[in-house]
Amino acid sequence: MPASTVGKPIQCIAAVAYDAKKPLSVEEITVDPPKAHEVRIKVEYTAVCHTDAYTLSGSDPEGLFPCILGHEGAGIVESVGDDVTTVKPGDHVIALYTAECGKCKFCTSGKTNLCSAVRATQGRGIMPDETTRFHNDKGEDIFHFMGCSTFSEYTVVADVSVVAIDPKAPLDAASLLGCGVTTGYGAAVKTANVQKNDTVAVFGCGTVGLSVIQGAKARGASKIIGVDINNKKKQYCFDFGATDFINPKEDLAKGQTIVEKLIEMTDGGLDFTFDCTGNTKIMRDALEACHKGWGQSIIIGVAAAGEEISTRPFQLVTGRVWKGSAFGGIKGRSEMGGLIKDYQNGALKVEEFITHRRPFKEINQAFEDLHHGDCLRTVLKFDKQ
Amino acid sequence: MPASTVGKPIQCIAAVAYDAKKPLSVEEITVDPPKAHEVRIKVEYTAVCHTDAYTLSGSDPEGLFPCILGHEGAGIVESVGDDVTTVKPGDHVIALYTAECGKCKFCTSGKTNLCSAVRATQGRGIMPDETTRFHNDKGEDIFHFMGCSTFSEYTVVADVSVVAIDPKAPLDAASLLGCGVTTGYGAAVKTANVQKNDTVAVFGCGTVGLSVIQGAKARGASKIIGVDINNKKKQYCFDFGATDFINPKEDLAKGQTIVEKLIEMTDGGLDFTFDCTGNTKIMRDALEACHKGWGQSIIIGVAAAGEEISTRPFQLVTGRVWKGSAFGGIKGRSEMGGLIKDYQNGALKVEEFITHRRPFKEINQAFEDLHHGDCLRTVLKFDKQ
Ligand SMILES: [Zn+2]
Ligand SMILES: [Zn+2]
Ligand SMILES: [Zn+2]
Ligand SMILES: [Zn+2]
Repeated sequence: MPASTVGKPIQCIAAVAYDAKKPLSVEEITVDPPKAHEVRIKVEYTAVCHTDAYTLSGSDPEGLFPCILGHEGAGIVESVGDDVTTVKPGDHVIALYTAECGKCKFCTSGKTNLCSAVRATQGRGIMPDETTRFHNDKGEDIFHFMGCSTFSEYTVVADVSVVAIDPKAPLDAASLLGCGVTTGYGAAVKTANVQKNDTVAVFGCGTVGLSVIQGAKARGASKIIGVDINNKKKQYCFDFGATDFINPKEDLAKGQTIVEKLIEMTDGGLDFTFDCTGNTKIMRDALEACHKGWGQSIIIGVAAAGEEISTRPFQLVTGRVWKGSAFGGIKGRSEMGGLIKDYQNGALKVEEFITHRRPFKEINQAFEDLHHGDCLRTVLKFDKQ
Repeated sequence: MPASTVGKPIQCIAAVAYDAKKPLSVEEITVDPPKAHEVRIKVEYTAVCHTDAYTLSGSDPEGLFPCILGHEGAGIVESVGDDVTTVKPGDHVIALYTAECGKCKFCTSGKTNLCSAVRATQGRGIMPDETTRFHNDKGEDIFHFMGCSTFSEYTVVADVSVVAIDPKAPLDAASLLGCGVTTGYGAAVKTANVQKNDTVAVFGCGTVGLSVIQGAKARGASKIIGVDINNKKKQYCFDFGATDFINPKEDLAKGQTIVEKLIEMTDGGLDFTFDCTGNTKIMRDALEACHKGWGQSIIIGVAAAGEEISTRPFQLVTGRVWKGSAFGGIKGRSEMGGLIKDYQNGALKVEEFITHRRPFKEINQAFEDLHHGDCLRTVLKFDKQ
């Protein structure tokens, strides 16, 4: 890293989302130096997640344009602002859309991984000082996204929104721990805390769902049922540890619902179900497929704006529990090291999710890849400058 | 107890619900002797609960007529059928609408107080052998209700649906442990497992809600907010341990919702909320008044047929948990002794709920009493024969 960039703006390549439903503009932007409690990262790899596509589609009522999307990314710290003690230049890092300050009411509660430190400004696409670090060549400000904005060769994040990792861990795999893999694996092993011999069903078998499956397998679940309407997901489910795969469009008896099918397969319902689809109708199915008395359903998927979940309260009064999980319940700064170790030990599959690789400039094609059932993750690599 | 009744039908007084929305008919009926695994109880006291009124109103789609209602009752075992080992003649007992067989998948799970042993026949108003023990003077069969039917001087219940208690415990108070008091207290101390300094809000402050309040107080909750639209409940709330009382019709600022009010009172929301109203709109408020990251809402109230609960899934993804509680999560046979001890030690208020007393023949007036805000429970006493 040339020392000369420290304290100075950097010109680099980025993909700017100027408006909903428009292709990203791959262009040169200016990235300001980090202010106090901020970190500037040279992003090495970034992956594209469905949440990026959701915001780009215009369906997210809180989406702001122009912005730089991207929240699954890993790279190397280029420089830090004043008072940064969490990382130093040269550290290998993952950007965290779920910050961890360690000091707020949430971080000190011992009950949640949500953190309030930078929540308000992050949601408004700006840094804590109410400004942005990104500008285009017309001098216009460009909004940040989810506190990460990894679709830029250089990005600036809050010091509570970044974690240093073992430099021996490959950064392409590490990037996936910034969202999808951690979200699913954590939902199984932390939020649900699946135990040996539990039965599990997972609705929606993309990267998140498959990571739930591998978390359930790691815990010794006796039955792990992947549910997806895309048969291309079947082999992936078995590869990651599922014992069964159900395609609700093909595998149900005439007049049978998916809930009835799952209850039949598990003698009364599941110990844990996970929704990774974002479809509120499926969230209801997932709850109602739980075993009376103790079954828990965990919502992971992000629903479209305004959509609501419903059920008869009798479902809960008879012992089912409805909960959710964000970033797998994982505290990004204090628990990422453990996930990296699990990955390095072979306990956690990560590279297996990289089904496609592209140079960064093909980012718009990477969004297209998401629509193909055989694509789990496309990892984009920034070209050498 | 004259030994001569053993093995013979007994003629006694009962209140028969011949049809929805009609007053109960107080008349002499015949109660058959108990068959194998059945127990005949001489009911000494019974109270009237809202669930009796709900079924009598005709709103319960599973309501069956003619039936003998009543599920909060205590008395003395008159005789037992073959193979009964759980109680013996002369035992003081409480009838249990939530059975505990100790052997089924539910009882042995360690995760729930629901029991499947007599569930199917109980729901159909009959004994496990598919017949009823009640007949009127025209020889017509009369259905059982909730496995208890305490609105009869003698009733027959399954041996898994009755628990013997300390004969020194007054049976009028004991009757209330058959439903309302146990349901609320257990929801707080067992289902929610409220901890010291937690904050709690209770929607609906009748017997169940006030029992939640005393459970929360017993656990050392720092703030216990009673919410009710009836100001007559205010003093009761404070008597049972509430620190605050909110009447949503009077105590909100202009345009403020009850959810906003509660969040303001608790710096972000409650650790636990309880719905004791059965109103699905209020169930939603109760969930949304929970603190982000960890707040849990427990549904206790029984909703009208067909009603559904709804919320945005974001409420759960950001850490709130939606669950329910039946009979307070209490296992009737193995845990009732502990509640009786709590009551005898003064840790659990029970007699304080008896606001009205009547002879059994005034049972229709006892249903009227329920509509008065100052009535918690009317206890009916069977006259000496
Ligand atoms: Zn994501
Ligand atoms: Zn924090
Ligand atoms: Zn009741
Ligand atoms: Zn049982």
